[in-house]
Amino acid sequence: MPDIVVMAPGATQEDIDRVIAALQAHGYGIHLSRGVERTIIGAIGALDEEKKLLGSRLEAFPGVERVITILKPYKLASREFQPEPTVIAVKPALSGAEGGVRIGGEKIVVMAGPCSVESRGQILEAAWAVKEAGADILRGGAYKPSTSPYSFRGLEREALEMLKEASLQTGLPIITEVIDPRDVSLVSEYADILQIGTRNMTNYMLLEEVGRARKPVMLKRGMSAKMEEWLLAADYILLGGNHQVILCERGIRTFETYTRFTLDINAVPAVKGLSHLPLIVDPSHGTGKWELVAAVARAAVAAGADGIMVEVHPRPEEALKDGYQSLRPAAFAELMKDLRRLAAALGRSL
Amino acid sequence: MPDIVVMAPGATQEDIDRVIAALQAHGYGIHLSRGVERTIIGAIGALDEEKKLLGSRLEAFPGVERVITILKPYKLASREFQPEPTVIAVKPALSGAEGGVRIGGEKIVVMAGPCSVESRGQILEAAWAVKEAGADILRGGAYKPSTSPYSFRGLEREALEMLKEASLQTGLPIITEVIDPRDVSLVSEYADILQIGTRNMTNYMLLEEVGRARKPVMLKRGMSAKMEEWLLAADYILLGGNHQVILCERGIRTFETYTRFTLDINAVPAVKGLSHLPLIVDPSHGTGKWELVAAVARAAVAAGADGIMVEVHPRPEEALKDGYQSLRPAAFAELMKDLRRLAAALGRSL
Amino acid sequence: MPDIVVMAPGATQEDIDRVIAALQAHGYGIHLSRGVERTIIGAIGALDEEKKLLGSRLEAFPGVERVITILKPYKLASREFQPEPTVIAVKPALSGAEGGVRIGGEKIVVMAGPCSVESRGQILEAAWAVKEAGADILRGGAYKPSTSPYSFRGLEREALEMLKEASLQTGLPIITEVIDPRDVSLVSEYADILQIGTRNMTNYMLLEEVGRARKPVMLKRGMSAKMEEWLLAADYILLGGNHQVILCERGIRTFETYTRFTLDINAVPAVKGLSHLPLIVDPSHGTGKWELVAAVARAAVAAGADGIMVEVHPRPEEALKDGYQSLRPAAFAELMKDLRRLAAALGRSL
Amino acid sequence: MPDIVVMAPGATQEDIDRVIAALQAHGYGIHLSRGVERTIIGAIGALDEEKKLLGSRLEAFPGVERVITILKPYKLASREFQPEPTVIAVKPALSGAEGGVRIGGEKIVVMAGPCSVESRGQILEAAWAVKEAGADILRGGAYKPSTSPYSFRGLEREALEMLKEASLQTGLPIITEVIDPRDVSLVSEYADILQIGTRNMTNYMLLEEVGRARKPVMLKRGMSAKMEEWLLAADYILLGGNHQVILCERGIRTFETYTRFTLDINAVPAVKGLSHLPLIVDPSHGTGKWELVAAVARAAVAAGADGIMVEVHPRPEEALKDGYQSLRPAAFAELMKDLRRLAAALGRSL
Repeated sequence: MPDIVVMAPGATQEDIDRVIAALQAHGYGIHLSRGVERTIIGAIGALDEEKKLLGSRLEAFPGVERVITILKPYKLASREFQPEPTVIAVKPALSGAEGGVRIGGEKIVVMAGPCSVESRGQILEAAWAVKEAGADILRGGAYKPSTSPYSFRGLEREALEMLKEASLQTGLPIITEVIDPRDVSLVSEYADILQIGTRNMTNYMLLEEVGRARKPVMLKRGMSAKMEEWLLAADYILLGGNHQVILCERGIRTFETYTRFTLDINAVPAVKGLSHLPLIVDPSHGTGKWELVAAVARAAVAAGADGIMVEVHPRPEEALKDGYQSLRPAAFAELMKDLRRLAAALGRSL
Repeated sequence: MPDIVVMAPGATQEDIDRVIAALQAHGYGIHLSRGVERTIIGAIGALDEEKKLLGSRLEAFPGVERVITILKPYKLASREFQPEPTVIAVKPALSGAEGGVRIGGEKIVVMAGPCSVESRGQILEAAWAVKEAGADILRGGAYKPSTSPYSFRGLEREALEMLKEASLQTGLPIITEVIDPRDVSLVSEYADILQIGTRNMTNYMLLEEVGRARKPVMLKRGMSAKMEEWLLAADYILLGGNHQVILCERGIRTFETYTRFTLDINAVPAVKGLSHLPLIVDPSHGTGKWELVAAVARAAVAAGADGIMVEVHPRPEEALKDGYQSLRPAAFAELMKDLRRLAAALGRSL
Repeated sequence: MPDIVVMAPGATQEDIDRVIAALQAHGYGIHLSRGVERTIIGAIGALDEEKKLLGSRLEAFPGVERVITILKPYKLASREFQPEPTVIAVKPALSGAEGGVRIGGEKIVVMAGPCSVESRGQILEAAWAVKEAGADILRGGAYKPSTSPYSFRGLEREALEMLKEASLQTGLPIITEVIDPRDVSLVSEYADILQIGTRNMTNYMLLEEVGRARKPVMLKRGMSAKMEEWLLAADYILLGGNHQVILCERGIRTFETYTRFTLDINAVPAVKGLSHLPLIVDPSHGTGKWELVAAVARAAVAAGADGIMVEVHPRPEEALKDGYQSLRPAAFAELMKDLRRLAAALGRSL
Repeated sequence: MPDIVVMAPGATQEDIDRVIAALQAHGYGIHLSRGVERTIIGAIGALDEEKKLLGSRLEAFPGVERVITILKPYKLASREFQPEPTVIAVKPALSGAEGGVRIGGEKIVVMAGPCSVESRGQILEAAWAVKEAGADILRGGAYKPSTSPYSFRGLEREALEMLKEASLQTGLPIITEVIDPRDVSLVSEYADILQIGTRNMTNYMLLEEVGRARKPVMLKRGMSAKMEEWLLAADYILLGGNHQVILCERGIRTFETYTRFTLDINAVPAVKGLSHLPLIVDPSHGTGKWELVAAVARAAVAAGADGIMVEVHPRPEEALKDGYQSLRPAAFAELMKDLRRLAAALGRSL
């Protein structure tokens, strides 16, 4: 398990090499993570007694900001690594609009839109509807990881173009899922946030690929992942140098069959305590029943989530996928009103 | 599966016998449930075709209020049986104080107190602390169903006496658990609400016994019970003629090990939709970590629970049981303030 | 957590009192368990440092056989407490027949019969069928703990009489479930083994009551009980002085819905390693599908179970309960042949 | 949901086009799966009434072997699609040795070897040890999908070379995991069977890629996958035209924490009944404890598995990964002897 050496923003390559050499001389493995702002060096395999000694020595090296010992299995995602919360600024790259959204701050963020992009008309209608109700970010699936190979798999590149148009028209940033490491750069051209779905939380090749991307990534919890495993998956992305990771609780698999999944509300305060990363809750997948979505969305906000992701479809009865868990625009607008009152009572805004 | 014949409040024994005779003449089994207000007759084993015919005939019988066909496996607990919510008035029998608490109405009810009654001093201190913070009902275990036979099992009758004194002093009604069908009448002398714990949700002999009691019963969800099974357990009590049943979600068993249980927040709107019974949420057991209790309590209220049950201990570090999930009085008072703001934003009071 | 003082078979009351006095003088709580063969004294709450000192002192007391320190939460059920396997001799009390069955020895024991006793004819037919196929013990439910209060609940005392007749005719000992602490002495008059069902594994009042009975008890695993909790439940019975406890793995609740439960085959070698108690496997409840029963029964025997419990009904399609998981007599006879070959290959008999 | 049109082995492209045109004329979507032996056409989205008509018409088309309607969500993996069991012949491509292994036939197949290839010496030693004990296939991980990015990730290409040498020396075919769709062709050059691990069962891009490979694929069950979802994942591979799919049960995630996973023994007869594909059981991952492996391996064989996969390490205490679940060569040899006796008693060989 590594100690973490955080290099200062202005550290030179020489500074970095010096630290690496010192670590290797003591027999450590090295994990180098070059982010936009700074470089982080993980020293893998250090023995506990040596750690302390080496740690204090390294802090005196030029270009070293601090050396951190972290007892948790996950490192970069932990509060020990970074006590203050991560706030991620999202701007619609395509529209060039002013402003933008900050995820992880005082304002609660709402991502909304249809499960899948089904047609130009559908996504534009949905985009305007969620925009008018006050959503911050437009969701819509272009590539769908479906349990059945016989189900709708998404309109793929065509859908990305439609999302682009919706973003240009409404000024909303876009979040959309990527399911293939070979598509990351293509999807990054369109998406403002890359989504990793629950079925790919342990697709480590994909995590590494989005770790090399320069777009924020929203990492959904695997449906049978413990919180610890979820944060380890976040570390896969963070280690690649991409520090803009957003977590998303979307329900876990339990014995209960009345709901599609069991939304783990405990995970909201628990993960906010363990990690500095922003946390979004998805009550649509977490319940699998549209009539439960509003209540669970309220619960998520009350529990301290940084935002919610909700499926909204102009006509759920015509949806190609997951219509039974999608809100109509009117119900979504109603929910937004409730959430605003709730956010105010909690000292936040929305 | 039965049809339900609801007799009118003024129905005579003769009226009842006439309905029973008619049902038996058609080969039905009979389940008679005599409540305080009215008698309900379940006709077990009716064939679907016959049901309709018989149903419309029976509605013309004297003393019959209505005949209901319910497709759900649970009957008396269902919204089909009773569309309007059940509101249960609880009064501290012992203190004879004015007022009382109504569970299931507009006001959100707070039950608080220590896991177990440990001493006279401890329960009095706890009772005053929760009373001052604004709790409505005092909780405290006299009989503890412990996983280990070597753990603290409760002070039993002695604890009931201490609870009585705490109730007399503070005017708070008492909720306490009963774990043995042979103790139901004893515990009923002290308790204002009888609690059935998660480990006894499928102890049907105990359910039947509290179904014959004339005290409200709070039925905790079994830790691996589906919502449907939980409502069937409620029917066991309701069938005994005791219509004052309160449900309590307290977390289910899942693969996650960071928390003791996974509180099923989905169950709050789901069960409120399926059943007319009031629903309380227990975030102390549902998380098993005191630092998560406040956030999950807020979530429960935001999701539409009729109240919460919280473990509060004057000095959690000295608690004989479950100290790690108990709030200190100061943290509880803080939570009460948060919940009041939240309730107001939701159009309820607390 | 207690140390265990095992008194020698001939220890006098005075010997026992002396040990208790010494323990109490050191501030320990006492748990006294008087078995048929010997008395066991649990010292609750001992501090670790004191334990050692006291332990070696106590071993010198008259009448003390040995003092055991056990680190596991369960004590009497553990291999540390008793390294050699417990073998339980079951004899049909009613028939007075020669012989009898030994559970936990080299021979694999087969318990078979219908889920519920439905009529005199049904149970006699079933009893003869399983006897002829080579079963050792007849099962049949008289009191049924049903999830629904509207389902068949058993013929109760009448069924006990029918079981008695079946036992007298066939010479097979009887196992039947008891669900109410108030019925333990009645059921003990008829049953050769008392069964505690999965829904009552945490009904500690019932466990204590059968702990005072002088009949073997088969304790089914709770459907969401960890192995450790199951062994703690066994300790509840053992602490009462009843050392004839048989464990029964019957499937746990998981997310899989194709089968009714997931039979935990890992638990067979695991629990046999952790505990000296005999272990039976119930593939009928563990799968909930008759077509899977034979394969899983074979697996249980191959994994090292001491026996199996199988539901057999003369005409499953007419069964009042669980017909879909019951074998026909012919299929059961076929299974017995397979199991005999398998047992021989494993160096056991059946 | 599609109907399946199976073309006869000699069908021409013209025959295929004619069927496709007819289906498209009726508005169906088409899923074409070209296997080595024959082409299968899935007609997606057919309405039930039309299906029958069209089905009988299509059977008269030249080159059409049969038209199948399958009610299960999975199609190509189902027994309805192919009643007779699939038997897969595996030959060590590299060694050019005579013979080979048949998976899914009368003989029970044993795959054994270390979790990961750690060094040339380690894999050669392990290969010879399992070969001598009678294993059929050598396992060894070159690419490891580890929950933690700080754990050992495999020697990758270097490990493939070492496996090649071990295969050449011992004549054992090799099974090894592939975790990246971009590596499928590289790994296919070395492996005789491609393994898809539990963490990638829902990595559909990877499934599609191995569906285009011409090597057998062993698909491990996702740790929270229902059997139905597992068979749907198999359909992803089968639809690509690769009909050599082997299933592997390796334990599911449950609440039990004493074992790493809960091996689902029910799945053995269940999946053998639902699907024609061969089924292997992995008791090493399924238990996570070496001392339980032998008992659960015996259970798997007794339940009807077509083989087992077992982790064997020359010195488990030095293993870089999963040493606690690896057997020593001597214990593995002992297990092989037990399994041989067991297989004989079941009318199979090993």
